[in-house]
Amino acid sequence: MTDPAHPAPSGSAWAAVTSALRASRRVLLVLHVRPDGDSIGCSLAVARGLRAIGKQAVVVSPDPIPANLAFLDPDRECVAPDKAAGPFDVALFLDCADLERIGTARTLLGEIPVVINIDHHRSNECYGTVNYVDPDAAACGEVALRLCDALSVPVDARAATALFAALATDTGGFRYGATTAVTLAMASRLRAAGADLALVGHEVWDSRSAGSLRLLAVALNSLGTDGELAWVSLRASDLASSADPGDSEGLVDYPRSLRGVEVAALFAADQPGRVRVSLRSNRRVDVSRLAQAFGGGGHARAAGCTVEGDLETVRNHVLDAARAALQPEGLS
Amino acid sequence: MTDPAHPAPSGSAWAAVTSALRASRRVLLVLHVRPDGDSIGCSLAVARGLRAIGKQAVVVSPDPIPANLAFLDPDRECVAPDKAAGPFDVALFLDCADLERIGTARTLLGEIPVVINIDHHRSNECYGTVNYVDPDAAACGEVALRLCDALSVPVDARAATALFAALATDTGGFRYGATTAVTLAMASRLRAAGADLALVGHEVWDSRSAGSLRLLAVALNSLGTDGELAWVSLRASDLASSADPGDSEGLVDYPRSLRGVEVAALFAADQPGRVRVSLRSNRRVDVSRLAQAFGGGGHARAAGCTVEGDLETVRNHVLDAARAALQPEGLS
Repeated sequence: MTDPAHPAPSGSAWAAVTSALRASRRVLLVLHVRPDGDSIGCSLAVARGLRAIGKQAVVVSPDPIPANLAFLDPDRECVAPDKAAGPFDVALFLDCADLERIGTARTLLGEIPVVINIDHHRSNECYGTVNYVDPDAAACGEVALRLCDALSVPVDARAATALFAALATDTGGFRYGATTAVTLAMASRLRAAGADLALVGHEVWDSRSAGSLRLLAVALNSLGTDGELAWVSLRASDLASSADPGDSEGLVDYPRSLRGVEVAALFAADQPGRVRVSLRSNRRVDVSRLAQAFGGGGHARAAGCTVEGDLETVRNHVLDAARAALQPEGLS
Repeated sequence: MTDPAHPAPSGSAWAAVTSALRASRRVLLVLHVRPDGDSIGCSLAVARGLRAIGKQAVVVSPDPIPANLAFLDPDRECVAPDKAAGPFDVALFLDCADLERIGTARTLLGEIPVVINIDHHRSNECYGTVNYVDPDAAACGEVALRLCDALSVPVDARAATALFAALATDTGGFRYGATTAVTLAMASRLRAAGADLALVGHEVWDSRSAGSLRLLAVALNSLGTDGELAWVSLRASDLASSADPGDSEGLVDYPRSLRGVEVAALFAADQPGRVRVSLRSNRRVDVSRLAQAFGGGGHARAAGCTVEGDLETVRNHVLDAARAALQPEGLS
């Protein structure tokens, strides 16, 4: 797990993180809105580790855990923010690029003196009192494993499964170019520590709801393409018929997977008068810059934004910007 | 890459393999019929390595290379068996469990004195003059990488990409339980050696045709479920609009991936008056027995048959048989 191109964390920011956690007694871990495998896996693994070294740890999630990730939380310890009884001396954010992403959990922050922000998003806003961001980590799970090591926190089979799920989901199953030799070496170590890869594979990728398959059919029926650009759209009525908010997860990968496509988008009219936009690129275009132009953010290959307006207007605006970004002189 | 549970190869069989290759001058590498990523990746990587240490190496494939794996062979060096000009002093089989799997390439074997059989299938029939089988390897790519090491053969970026593809495809993207810590450590090393993960991910899994996405939408619109049974159907008119016969590949995995489903089926009315049926199961039911009842065959988890009749009649018959197989006393 040592690689000259991606050294283990060090420096004053990392020292501040580890000393704040060593000094902590009661830690609130906060998932981001629409929590994914990286958010859930990191927080549950680190919470488990903190408890093993005598800390109290409570995990809150501003949104429900998606059905295909519920296996990571067999004890149902991720609670809604209003169920987390303070006081806490430390709030720990893993995988949250900005405070927008913590939704209703924000109300808990007023009285917590130390806010630790650990992330891998280049766009992280360093909103903590202590911040550590490693943009070379393919998943926040990499930083979480290094945090466990730095705190001499044990990684048992359940924590290993959670961290493996974090790595596997954020890298699309070790398929994205951001996956490094370090990511895979960590995955190897987690497997050796007892990570249940078959469980992760089955639950994450092979336990779809009927609703998600229906929504996939609706999305595919809406497929639009224009040169290197492909997109799918979900109207409010499509989304209203779906029980699980996680059902639209991964849909953007279908237009992205079309041969010859560089930029893919999912437009989901999930609230009246606004559209959630997920953006993906395959090789060249930095979609985080595209998302930023609409008040969002993310990574070069995966980003998103939420734009006010009706579905068609928002789609037209974003697609125009994407076409500009696809020009040789465009954002890239 | 050392793990007490899965040590590096040793012993007389391995010594015989490496000394036969060291003594070789002109090696014929043979892919198996319907070659997959493991077969292609292993043979191209080892052929490249053998050339780097002064051997001649020719790769033959009894069947065409699938479109989504063609990127592994940019120089189109995999030739049909009748294009391989002998003589060869060694034939090398990687990932071929038995001689049935080498198809028309079998005709080449008569005059080759040394036949090296390297594999990871437990069912391997040890048909070589020298045989090395490691059933704990998740992919033959693991043994191929160890072979390169044993021969002091360099693994450059292109060979690393080929071997990474071998590991990634045979483990379903490191999702199957057979994936070990060694598999992932090797993947890490291949990434460090320059394996292009994004290329593998993109070409293998993300190069769909527009036709295949359209057909997926049609299939999902036809989704039917009944308890642990789920199926999709394609009418003749649906299939007629699709250009590539490979477009229906993998569609049966969608009903299979539904939470709670044990048996999944795809019904494709691909010829007048007959229906091609693909069957999958997740854990329990032996669908090869189900397929055999309709004149087909296959494996316990993946099988198929072609049944005379119209779509609705065939579907009803097969689903009735599947319901019987799902009973506790049924085929399993």
